[in-house]
Amino acid sequence: MSVLVVGSMALDTVETPFGKVENILGGSASYFSLAASNFTDVNVVAVVGNDFPEEHIQLLESHDIKLDGVKREEGETFKWVGHYGYDLSEAKTLETHLNVFETFNPVLPDHYKDIDIVFLANIDPDIQLEVLKQVNKPKLVACDTMNFWIESKPEQLKNLLKHVDILMINDAETRELAGEPIIVKAARKIMEMGPKMLIVKRGEYGALMFSKEGIFYAPSYPLEEVFDPTGAGDTFAGGFMGYVASHDINNVNDYKRAVIYGSVLASFTVEDFSVNRLAKLNKDEIEARYLAFMNLSTIE
Amino acid sequence: MSVLVVGSMALDTVETPFGKVENILGGSASYFSLAASNFTDVNVVAVVGNDFPEEHIQLLESHDIKLDGVKREEGETFKWVGHYGYDLSEAKTLETHLNVFETFNPVLPDHYKDIDIVFLANIDPDIQLEVLKQVNKPKLVACDTMNFWIESKPEQLKNLLKHVDILMINDAETRELAGEPIIVKAARKIMEMGPKMLIVKRGEYGALMFSKEGIFYAPSYPLEEVFDPTGAGDTFAGGFMGYVASHDINNVNDYKRAVIYGSVLASFTVEDFSVNRLAKLNKDEIEARYLAFMNLSTIE
Repeated sequence: MSVLVVGSMALDTVETPFGKVENILGGSASYFSLAASNFTDVNVVAVVGNDFPEEHIQLLESHDIKLDGVKREEGETFKWVGHYGYDLSEAKTLETHLNVFETFNPVLPDHYKDIDIVFLANIDPDIQLEVLKQVNKPKLVACDTMNFWIESKPEQLKNLLKHVDILMINDAETRELAGEPIIVKAARKIMEMGPKMLIVKRGEYGALMFSKEGIFYAPSYPLEEVFDPTGAGDTFAGGFMGYVASHDINNVNDYKRAVIYGSVLASFTVEDFSVNRLAKLNKDEIEARYLAFMNLSTIE
Repeated sequence: MSVLVVGSMALDTVETPFGKVENILGGSASYFSLAASNFTDVNVVAVVGNDFPEEHIQLLESHDIKLDGVKREEGETFKWVGHYGYDLSEAKTLETHLNVFETFNPVLPDHYKDIDIVFLANIDPDIQLEVLKQVNKPKLVACDTMNFWIESKPEQLKNLLKHVDILMINDAETRELAGEPIIVKAARKIMEMGPKMLIVKRGEYGALMFSKEGIFYAPSYPLEEVFDPTGAGDTFAGGFMGYVASHDINNVNDYKRAVIYGSVLASFTVEDFSVNRLAKLNKDEIEARYLAFMNLSTIE
């Protein structure tokens, strides 16, 4: 099955203790689609400005990513300037310029409307719902969100969650959305809001998947080199959704495998700036790291 | 085989969002020995003041813990006053009164000197080394330490590590001891200092075990109730060392099982104040939670 993703395409300026890059390819839809493209067809809905370099379009298209839903509008592309300290665990946002993204009003091309697997990346919940209305009976809908929307649009977000199968957020967002510090209780509250499944992304501490079948604890891969964590969460989502779209998913064990593939893809993203590592990844590397992940938590 | 532990016995005053308790049983040796007593004989070396309640002695002895190496001295017992915020991840120390612990000069009873399995809890590395000198050819030596000793006695600590098989510390201590932010590289540097194995304790994020056979990633159990994290690390060490002392350890998989048992014991400790939960634990509860831990990271 194909995947539809709606999210941002951005030009990022990032500084880490290991270097600085300016106006490189970023945005949730970019990371997501490159990760998912290892498994299946990906169709993007996004908006860019007239400054968005043609080479980025070509890079995505060279991975067979469909950009028919990407509008190019007058003005500048969404720009983000961020900084990471030595522990790399949290980005400090220095500047956010929404530019053409501020008035993003996604209109799905007709041939997008029957796509079965939908990912709503972290954007205004009103826009996420607007996209969902344009899709005909999707088989699986997943979404991301952030503290900004939990605080500024709680009702719209809760309304959206009624129509979502899987929510993927981080630890702090899980606690904030549920208003509950104990993560197990927070997960239960969130699943009462609509999602059948909650995936809590914990960066270097792996991921937790909550479902009615119980809890799955996925490791993260202790890496030799961590360059830039930007995009790890969106890459995780891309790997997860790509795996789900391209396999017969029969039970919770298949979703567990999808979580591991999401983690595998994310572990590559952080090894370099932007999508650099992700863009040159091959299937053998993915399978080798999948095995390494499985070995991490195996007792013989 | 029996276990020897040298560490603190303390009276703690702890406040968490769920309540406050005063002058309750605390200290690394208390948590460690109660955890290890589920597996084997435990022999304690510690010091208490003449205010140390007889009921705590009786509690430990009722678990067959040997206190021949616990000296009662004139003065007050080591006292710690700590506070946890809503996320419970880190204690804020409000007061530390070393009292009789300040001049702690451990002298091992003769019948302690042939014990094979030794745990040096977090105390001055000079004292840890002093204890080690009094033991005849132990089969396995493990130790803990903390940022205070890494900063104030780095040479003494490095000297000690030459004689230690397993070091158990947390994430930040691993990075600080190695002077290296990437945890995989930090682990490698520390294993070059002496230990054949490094266990990185990560609280609610589980534990990492580094050895020449590779990395093992142990989950933590997502708990419904977390009351008071005090003593979780020492309980982990007690469960780990108790399991190792009471089983034929042939390869890295046996050490992996020991890590899970350590995590299992620690998961009980945090469910109540002091050693309350640990003191009333039975073998069936331990085995049931061991299975729950294994299921957490299993894909069928």
